[in-house]
Amino acid sequence: MGKEKYVYGFHQGSRDMKSLLGGKGANLAEMTNIGLPVPPGFTITTEACTRFYNEGKTLWPELIDEIRTHLMEVEEKLGKSFSDEENPLLFSVRSGAVISMPGMMDTILNLGLNDSTVKGLASSTGNERFAYDSYRRFIQMFSDVAMGIPKVRFESLLEDMKDSKGVTNDTDLESEDLKKLVDLYKEVYKEDMGEEFPQDPMKQLILSIEAVFASWNNPRAIVYRDLNDIPHDLGTAVNIQSMVFGNMGKRSGTGVAFTRNPADGENKLFGEFLIDAQGEDVVAGIRTPNHINELKEIMPEVYDEFVEATKILEKHYKDMQDIEFTIENGNLFFLQTRNGKRTAQAAINIAVDLVEEGLISKEESMLRIEPNQLDQLLHPNFDEKELKNSNNIAKGLAASPGAASGKIYFNAEDVKAAKGRGEKAILVRQETSPEDIEGMISAEGILTARGGMTSHAAVVARGMGKCCVAGCSDIIVDEENKLMKTKILTLREGDYISIDGGTGIVYLGDIKKVEPELTGNFSKFMDWVDEIRKLRIRTNADSPRDAAQAIKFGAEGIGLCRTEHMFFEDTRIPAVRRMIVSDSLEDRKEALDELLPMQRKDFYEIYKEMGERPVTIRLLDPPLHEFLPNKDEEIKSLAVSMGIEIEKLKDRILSLAEVNPMLGHRGCRLAITYPEIYRMQARAIIEAAIDVKVEGFESIQPEIMIPLIGHINELKYIKSEIVDEINQVFEERGQRLDYLVGTMIEIPRACVTADEIAKEAEFFSFGTNDLTQMGFGFSRDDSGKYLNDYKDRGILEKSPFEVLDQNGIGKLMELAVELGRKSRQDIHLGICGEHGGEPSSVEFCHKIGLDYVSCSPFRVPIARLAAAQAVVKEKI
Amino acid sequence: MGKEKYVYGFHQGSRDMKSLLGGKGANLAEMTNIGLPVPPGFTITTEACTRFYNEGKTLWPELIDEIRTHLMEVEEKLGKSFSDEENPLLFSVRSGAVISMPGMMDTILNLGLNDSTVKGLASSTGNERFAYDSYRRFIQMFSDVAMGIPKVRFESLLEDMKDSKGVTNDTDLESEDLKKLVDLYKEVYKEDMGEEFPQDPMKQLILSIEAVFASWNNPRAIVYRDLNDIPHDLGTAVNIQSMVFGNMGKRSGTGVAFTRNPADGENKLFGEFLIDAQGEDVVAGIRTPNHINELKEIMPEVYDEFVEATKILEKHYKDMQDIEFTIENGNLFFLQTRNGKRTAQAAINIAVDLVEEGLISKEESMLRIEPNQLDQLLHPNFDEKELKNSNNIAKGLAASPGAASGKIYFNAEDVKAAKGRGEKAILVRQETSPEDIEGMISAEGILTARGGMTSHAAVVARGMGKCCVAGCSDIIVDEENKLMKTKILTLREGDYISIDGGTGIVYLGDIKKVEPELTGNFSKFMDWVDEIRKLRIRTNADSPRDAAQAIKFGAEGIGLCRTEHMFFEDTRIPAVRRMIVSDSLEDRKEALDELLPMQRKDFYEIYKEMGERPVTIRLLDPPLHEFLPNKDEEIKSLAVSMGIEIEKLKDRILSLAEVNPMLGHRGCRLAITYPEIYRMQARAIIEAAIDVKVEGFESIQPEIMIPLIGHINELKYIKSEIVDEINQVFEERGQRLDYLVGTMIEIPRACVTADEIAKEAEFFSFGTNDLTQMGFGFSRDDSGKYLNDYKDRGILEKSPFEVLDQNGIGKLMELAVELGRKSRQDIHLGICGEHGGEPSSVEFCHKIGLDYVSCSPFRVPIARLAAAQAVVKEKI
Repeated sequence: MGKEKYVYGFHQGSRDMKSLLGGKGANLAEMTNIGLPVPPGFTITTEACTRFYNEGKTLWPELIDEIRTHLMEVEEKLGKSFSDEENPLLFSVRSGAVISMPGMMDTILNLGLNDSTVKGLASSTGNERFAYDSYRRFIQMFSDVAMGIPKVRFESLLEDMKDSKGVTNDTDLESEDLKKLVDLYKEVYKEDMGEEFPQDPMKQLILSIEAVFASWNNPRAIVYRDLNDIPHDLGTAVNIQSMVFGNMGKRSGTGVAFTRNPADGENKLFGEFLIDAQGEDVVAGIRTPNHINELKEIMPEVYDEFVEATKILEKHYKDMQDIEFTIENGNLFFLQTRNGKRTAQAAINIAVDLVEEGLISKEESMLRIEPNQLDQLLHPNFDEKELKNSNNIAKGLAASPGAASGKIYFNAEDVKAAKGRGEKAILVRQETSPEDIEGMISAEGILTARGGMTSHAAVVARGMGKCCVAGCSDIIVDEENKLMKTKILTLREGDYISIDGGTGIVYLGDIKKVEPELTGNFSKFMDWVDEIRKLRIRTNADSPRDAAQAIKFGAEGIGLCRTEHMFFEDTRIPAVRRMIVSDSLEDRKEALDELLPMQRKDFYEIYKEMGERPVTIRLLDPPLHEFLPNKDEEIKSLAVSMGIEIEKLKDRILSLAEVNPMLGHRGCRLAITYPEIYRMQARAIIEAAIDVKVEGFESIQPEIMIPLIGHINELKYIKSEIVDEINQVFEERGQRLDYLVGTMIEIPRACVTADEIAKEAEFFSFGTNDLTQMGFGFSRDDSGKYLNDYKDRGILEKSPFEVLDQNGIGKLMELAVELGRKSRQDIHLGICGEHGGEPSSVEFCHKIGLDYVSCSPFRVPIARLAAAQAVVKEKI
Repeated sequence: MGKEKYVYGFHQGSRDMKSLLGGKGANLAEMTNIGLPVPPGFTITTEACTRFYNEGKTLWPELIDEIRTHLMEVEEKLGKSFSDEENPLLFSVRSGAVISMPGMMDTILNLGLNDSTVKGLASSTGNERFAYDSYRRFIQMFSDVAMGIPKVRFESLLEDMKDSKGVTNDTDLESEDLKKLVDLYKEVYKEDMGEEFPQDPMKQLILSIEAVFASWNNPRAIVYRDLNDIPHDLGTAVNIQSMVFGNMGKRSGTGVAFTRNPADGENKLFGEFLIDAQGEDVVAGIRTPNHINELKEIMPEVYDEFVEATKILEKHYKDMQDIEFTIENGNLFFLQTRNGKRTAQAAINIAVDLVEEGLISKEESMLRIEPNQLDQLLHPNFDEKELKNSNNIAKGLAASPGAASGKIYFNAEDVKAAKGRGEKAILVRQETSPEDIEGMISAEGILTARGGMTSHAAVVARGMGKCCVAGCSDIIVDEENKLMKTKILTLREGDYISIDGGTGIVYLGDIKKVEPELTGNFSKFMDWVDEIRKLRIRTNADSPRDAAQAIKFGAEGIGLCRTEHMFFEDTRIPAVRRMIVSDSLEDRKEALDELLPMQRKDFYEIYKEMGERPVTIRLLDPPLHEFLPNKDEEIKSLAVSMGIEIEKLKDRILSLAEVNPMLGHRGCRLAITYPEIYRMQARAIIEAAIDVKVEGFESIQPEIMIPLIGHINELKYIKSEIVDEINQVFEERGQRLDYLVGTMIEIPRACVTADEIAKEAEFFSFGTNDLTQMGFGFSRDDSGKYLNDYKDRGILEKSPFEVLDQNGIGKLMELAVELGRKSRQDIHLGICGEHGGEPSSVEFCHKIGLDYVSCSPFRVPIARLAAAQAVVKEKI
């Protein structure tokens, strides 16, 4: 075995060497390679980390020699030297794992300072205070990060010093104070470590490198790797980079810049800098920075070099860059470049410009926009400045994006009344139910204490494009007394709050909002998206209004039209309730006969709105008790209005109550007990379709979807009932048309018996909300409470209700796709769960070969983009 | 193509020709073949049925010729002839599908009667009344069954006749009355069919055969075949058999006999007969039948022939036979033989005797007892005679076998108080909860209006071996007013009812019970069972008492020791509640410290009871709210006793409430939020094990089972917590021992990711109750309501909570077994859901290669037998 190479100078690596050099090391090497002035340095490889453990957690002589060689190279390159008492070379030391990981060691700056080099730093920067402050910080960082001495030991000394001087800010301490602190810090070090603070820079360096390697195996990092299936023998690299200082006088400075405007994407350099300053000064905002253009006047040659470099960087990375730079005595250095964060609007404009500039292809442009970002373009957002000064009082789930402010009200009627008075209202509920619909329509936004991302409130709000924060377990909602309590304050009806449905944060008071704008580039970009994607995008829409909204956003059909929402309307609910309370089949049929023309009209209007686009209608799904009141008073008044005994109504309500309604008498199970309900719905669907066909919609082909099928026999029974009813309609009307009968696939048992079910079902639509509930055994209404603990402990990264759990629920889907296609090769496959609008889930649906995804109207553009990305990613 | 054979004389078939001759035809042929005197006849094949449809639903000339040929053969054999006006040959016509099916045509008797043959029958039987009654019945049967004329048309005429004669029984009508009825019946036929009642026996026969074939495709039969995947082209056979009459005088008679005693299995002929009588007379009980032995004196040669035949039958069928016979003018005929129904005690005795007689092998004897029958031997049963005269008032689920009577009470305290007064009480609840435990212990039996076969009431009752009827939706329980209402009556506290946990029936009043007896043959038989079976049988037991009971029944270990039941005891619940209400980790730990010694004692006592047998302990599973009261009053008194504010306690209870508790914050999810709970339990398990190890139980190896794992990361996290706690115990005690950590597999997601989970789990135990709930999406507490509709409509034959759904839930299990073994070859696999004691489910567990099943103590003998049967069936 020849001599191993464990250390790479930045000029020796490249971005392809991530597994050896770690992410950070590979990036520093890349910048060096493309000719940018990067403060020189070197990377100790991940392989060295592995050997470190084999050597008994110590650096071995050959490695130390190799490090020394690279150190000397840097010294030569910079004409400075390590330990130089006049112009010392200082280093930063940083860990650099392939995958970044909590618990790993962070950064040590200014390594190389000691009692004598600190003086050199003072004279070379002409700033003694800065030098000693740097030394003080270095001692603390080294002691804490590398040697494990608790930070508080140093911080309390700093506090004491400030107290004794009667000042409140660190910056108010003078050189002399800081010198004293350095002495005190060194004493702490000696006390805790049993030896003097190491003065030898080389010793400082070796201890720091060992500390980085050791941190690879600290308990938090091990647990993290365990939970995320990261091999324990990957190891981390260590990056050692020379320090540069922007505070060495008038020909020094520091700044940050974007190669294009991150707010709107305009192709102009955008940035700020400060002369004679450090990076943190720019951020701290104590001095007002200069616009980047001013650099042209102050240091024209540096400015030209900088502009040149930004062009190289954009070309190299083919994207707008966010750059950190420092000028040390007229020499420009790049400390970091990365793809710049940007607003959605900027992202679109930049992507389109880059394509038109010939820098990237249309396909590449697809990956430049985070699909979820598009939400920003469709909903109002809070004014950034006002937001900074607002009080965050609670945090829930970001259930439906947008920003809303208003007075709080605790029930639907009060919200409606408030709206009637011209007030803006936020509906605050323990959780919402279908009875709250009108209140939700009247409200600016909705806040619930319970329920997950797919709770009633969340689903309905997203459908409406209305802002909603759900499952906010930080608050207790006392609906009876109209109070909303957080740990520290109690709000009453009429108090103002603001909610951000994109972050889940609840603020006190009324915050200004900004309306979004759609640019011409948006539709250009979305056209490209549609050229590329293969998945069709449908929408979940229950009304002509939703359908119209979705078509505006590019929906190609309805994948889920829920018929129950139609049942809750004021004009219909009495007949629905009469149907439920009926004693006999005859009474039930009579009530259903009353509902028939209304449902027929619903479908007629939706067909008209959708034109030739496909429409999938799901038959009644929720348990019947959702349609009945549960408060004594309401029960009484209902009994009176129905002309039946209160006792009888109560008995019926009691007999319908369920321990676990989610797993109860709902979906197709209702139709097995009361086939006449689905018969009425099937009749309405077909009669309405014949009506529009007569009016010229020749190709209409309704898709009838049976929910909650778990067993083939359920489908056989129900299908025979509705086919029989439909044949009656054909006979009565003397007219036939094509229609499909298919099923939701939302029960685990349906997935593993999909081959049987496909024999009767002409299409499957995955109901991933319920499939996740049952597959995971998580109630979406209740899981908010514990899923936070799951995230905190790293057990689940994301709620499976937000992001499809590909590894588990996805396996059930794959099984269903495979089995379903086995029995019926041309079975049409889609998804209509909320995941149909979540980008990574859409990509998964593309991968497993679904034909379409269906999502709420406001998610349609996101799904379109995600579908296009899936195609592009597949080609990479 | 040569001439097809569509008709088989009974002497031409055999029991192997079921698919051609149908079940009934094959059996008649078999009896004929072994030389028994069977009234001759013939079978028209299922293939003829298929051709019948191809021919346009009509019999074709060749077939009619073939039928005629076989008719003539019968005529020759019997020396009687069809249409003979003096001694007419009459026939029965019956359908005979391969698989019997609801909706298919039933039986037509006395075919061949007409206006002239009826006279021949009168003279040959010497009983004119009988002849006309037979004719009347034949017209009705033929009209109704074959021609579809509603039965009510005839029945109303019969009623009119009885009214006009002032009599109430059919038997009070005289010959003349019946003659008039015959005329009236014929008029009805003419009215409805537009032609005279067919007088030609051949025409009667052809119409009847066509009716049988046509009934194959009546709607109910089609739906049934659809639901049960029976091919529609199987067709049905038709059996045409000559009638014999036992009422032709003193040398005629009829009877039924068992070859051994069906009550206790004694090897002695057991039966009854009547001279000069018809089959229905024996059943009707108007005349007192003679014991079979008396036949020896009356007709010695017939008796000898009969005894000889019974021996042949037993040898041939190798089982005790239930025989129907008729003697017509001194000639003995066998009309039916089948394996006789018998009590469990008889079944055991007969099986053991047959083995000892050398007639069957031990392995064959395994199949002679329906495992569920063993239940009869372990529980009391109602006295059959009293039962017949009792009023059945409702029917629920047969949740836990046994028979119980008592006064009804509506809460646990009242039951306890009643027991204190020396009364026998039945606990009647909407549904039970853990708080009812003491009431359940005091009660004779338990009746609930809600909840399925695996509801709390059912599971706990089975564990106790206590009679329970659950999910009785026929009743409404008003706990507040202490009323139990059925559709027609209202019972009050203190009223007597009796419940049969083996049938689910609720009776009014107090019914006498018989205690079971265990014979020596029982243990002999069970020894054979144990020799043969391969599955190990464990028990679900939470207390030393249950464990002892289970060992008595042959349990080889504990497969599920639920730790939560221990939490409900009076002495512990305060600490449990304090733990739940705690605000801080410290308070919670303090409460847990109080529980630790109690849990340790629980485990210590169970280990001691179980000796060297394995014990699997499941850590806390139910949601915390189950431990808190929900009534205002109780909450108040709890708050007072805990010294906290009522408001605070209410807030906590509110914050713990869940919409779907089944899918809520329970099982391992609790331990992710509160790892200290499982830590305490793990500590108790290990400390107790060290204690018994010190006392000499060297091989003790506790099995720690984590419930509700759905994701590998849950298990990793929890395992690291409890392993850490256990290592602390080892250190404190200076002693180690082996233990296993495994999981319940009860979440669908766990099944499809079992390969991942098996990397950390040393054993899997299928929790098929929850797996069925989540896999099917059926709440076991609520599904009782709609599962009846499923059964009524033939969608599910059995509740999947009673009988494992092998096709769906079983697939998930198979997947888990396969994936689990892939990652960990020697993973130990068991089942601890209620299905572990259900015979067909046990067989399935054997088939998919589990190592053991675990069930409630009283199901252990049943599981043992089912496991042995699985081995035997595999060899067939």
